[in-house]
Amino acid sequence: MNFTDWIGSIAAFLTTTAFLPQAVHSWRTRDLSGISLPMYTLFSLGVGCWFIYGLLILSWPIIIANGITLMLAMVVLSLKLKHV
Amino acid sequence: MNFTDWIGSIAAFLTTTAFLPQAVHSWRTRDLSGISLPMYTLFSLGVGCWFIYGLLILSWPIIIANGITLMLAMVVLSLKLKHV
Repeated sequence: MNFTDWIGSIAAFLTTTAFLPQAVHSWRTRDLSGISLPMYTLFSLGVGCWFIYGLLILSWPIIIANGITLMLAMVVLSLKLKHV
Repeated sequence: MNFTDWIGSIAAFLTTTAFLPQAVHSWRTRDLSGISLPMYTLFSLGVGCWFIYGLLILSWPIIIANGITLMLAMVVLSLKLKHV
């Protein structure tokens, strides 16, 4: 892998795993008042579209990264919907 | 644009604009306790890497989308750092 590929891979790893501490924090604390419902609605829809896009162009990195992010974002979204 | 391009464009639009309502919500309410500091740290670093990746491969969609997301995520991150 060249430098550009490394930067792209680090970027994908960070933006995917970033939602893990948020999902854990929201699950543990049930403190959802500071979480924006429109954000997690738009974001989950968007990540769902990225997932479908990955399937359409058969790109495993896009499918896997967005599949993981979608699950984590849905945890936060469902907790928010329960605590609106 | 074909169907695949449309899905990709909608995905990019949604995941970029999603952070606007969160930044506005955090700015107005100053309610940051439910926001995960590790999430916004990892996410901002990741989006910063996507921005650099966009510059390296000279992709304007990646540069613009991640430039906007980086600014919005940094608003939430800086508010969180002020309210830790």
